[in-house]
Amino acid sequence: MYGTVIHAPRDIRFEELEDPGIVEPTDAIIRVSATCVCGSDLWNYRGINEIGHPRPMGHEYVGIVEEVGAEVTTVAPGEFVIGSFFASDNTCEICRAGYQSGCVHSEPVQGAQAEYLRVPLADGTLVAAPEVPPDDLVPDLLAASDVLGTGWFGAVAADVGPGKTVVVVGDGAVGLLGVLAAHQLGAARIIAMSRHEPRQRLARDFGATDIVEERGDEGVAHIEEMTDGLGAHSVIEAVGTQESMMQAISSARFGGHVGFVGVSHGQSIPGERLFRSGIHLHGGPARVRRFLPDLIGQIVERKIHPGKVFDLDLPLSEVAEGYAAMDERRAIKSLLRP
Amino acid sequence: MYGTVIHAPRDIRFEELEDPGIVEPTDAIIRVSATCVCGSDLWNYRGINEIGHPRPMGHEYVGIVEEVGAEVTTVAPGEFVIGSFFASDNTCEICRAGYQSGCVHSEPVQGAQAEYLRVPLADGTLVAAPEVPPDDLVPDLLAASDVLGTGWFGAVAADVGPGKTVVVVGDGAVGLLGVLAAHQLGAARIIAMSRHEPRQRLARDFGATDIVEERGDEGVAHIEEMTDGLGAHSVIEAVGTQESMMQAISSARFGGHVGFVGVSHGQSIPGERLFRSGIHLHGGPARVRRFLPDLIGQIVERKIHPGKVFDLDLPLSEVAEGYAAMDERRAIKSLLRP
Repeated sequence: MYGTVIHAPRDIRFEELEDPGIVEPTDAIIRVSATCVCGSDLWNYRGINEIGHPRPMGHEYVGIVEEVGAEVTTVAPGEFVIGSFFASDNTCEICRAGYQSGCVHSEPVQGAQAEYLRVPLADGTLVAAPEVPPDDLVPDLLAASDVLGTGWFGAVAADVGPGKTVVVVGDGAVGLLGVLAAHQLGAARIIAMSRHEPRQRLARDFGATDIVEERGDEGVAHIEEMTDGLGAHSVIEAVGTQESMMQAISSARFGGHVGFVGVSHGQSIPGERLFRSGIHLHGGPARVRRFLPDLIGQIVERKIHPGKVFDLDLPLSEVAEGYAAMDERRAIKSLLRP
Repeated sequence: MYGTVIHAPRDIRFEELEDPGIVEPTDAIIRVSATCVCGSDLWNYRGINEIGHPRPMGHEYVGIVEEVGAEVTTVAPGEFVIGSFFASDNTCEICRAGYQSGCVHSEPVQGAQAEYLRVPLADGTLVAAPEVPPDDLVPDLLAASDVLGTGWFGAVAADVGPGKTVVVVGDGAVGLLGVLAAHQLGAARIIAMSRHEPRQRLARDFGATDIVEERGDEGVAHIEEMTDGLGAHSVIEAVGTQESMMQAISSARFGGHVGFVGVSHGQSIPGERLFRSGIHLHGGPARVRRFLPDLIGQIVERKIHPGKVFDLDLPLSEVAEGYAAMDERRAIKSLLRP
């Protein structure tokens, strides 16, 4: 088969690889229907994460089950499945508490930007759609595999609920889908922090009521002004830098909640600042699996259209362009079809 | 009147001061029945916080209302009252949400280690006991003013509840009362981290089921061993240093809760570590006022005896010894009677 391998910063190759096979009796092999490039893939692409040896890329996927291991019971060949980027058994104490991304047997799913993919712990990781979906639902379902689930987790971690004022820091796909999640969860006011017109438009489409263009201290001052000097009830942090985290913490009111889902890079949170802020802070790798059944339901009932974040649709063989377009901010998110 | 003033590190003086008077119509003046030395006072005493000009000390107090401003309606002269170290109006949006230490009108109460004390925002800050209590309840009620309320908040912030495993980092008065709070809130297992025999005894008396003497990585490894490799559901951090905070974060399971109430000093929390941990983090200045009515009720019904943390009982004039004894860890907490 053919798949995507990163060899060095900005060196993405679509090359011939060995077909994946069942390794453990809990594995499934899926024929990938669609995959995409994640904001977190760009940390490698840009050389911010060290790459070391050539690595298969991709962790977002939907597809048709091709083959299952002897112990797999909940998905069967021919079914259309959506899975999370962390394989989880969904039965351990941590999973049962709803924190599947911290599963005691968790392992990353890797190499999804390919024709075929091995998914470990298939019973715990994959959720089958009620039927093989029509083509136009594929991007929506693919979004559930990571960015929608992550944005949704950000909103849940930020304790978004009816009547609340929500700030979203970050206008990438995750931030935009954090807006969608906040809207679905009943927020009264959703302030998207974005200075990019096409992203602002999508944010409004997903339910943002206000846009703030300023960043850093100016952005925080604007939020304060809009919230009677109190700050927001809930803030979703969807970038992962020091600046974005401090902007998020400073945008929340005393007693408010910050849900952080931007993969942390070089952040250092000053304890005194956090102490004085009186906020709740929760985040980390999103427990997408927990939300998948609900999100798939909302998608097949056509209540939400998270697939709108894909503004570039390419054959998988053009994966390198998918990375480049996101890196240069020509695209919000690149969908790839094998 | 006489009161306590810090002039320089380790220079605590009991000296003549002007009698406090009503400044705002929302003030009350109370005749202090008992006050005490806080662990956080030691940050000044040890010269870790800069002192600058001489400062009246003390923020924990119970006493009899002597005089009230024209707008005070909920407490009256002659009543025995307990108040928090942060004055709050108890009516603003932040207070109504239960976060009185972040009240939009909050101001610190200062100078409580004295014969008389001015308490701002008396209606929002003070809670009257049902009657003037017998002498033996005074230490318990005094504890509610800060250390009990703070330990209780730590337990609430750590989401302590029935059946949970709780770790308490810090064996000062706040940590010990965090143990008491965890016990009252129904925790199944309470692991106190302490290497001081008299404190271990008090921890057990308050409900600790286990003691861990190791600190840092060794302490964390011991907790892991005791919790099937998962870590605790809830961790109360009651010290405020870098080491104690990281020990707390590392002792919690993925998806667990850390409630931090030790006043932060020089901490820097690495974002990557926090991201990977998957924990909930909440803390800061305790919203003691929120818990006061409940805690006073438990005390007058003699359900809890938080006053046991006072193992030194001195006339207020010997306040300097009260500081020295705590600084040298000869005492857990010094009670002072004017």
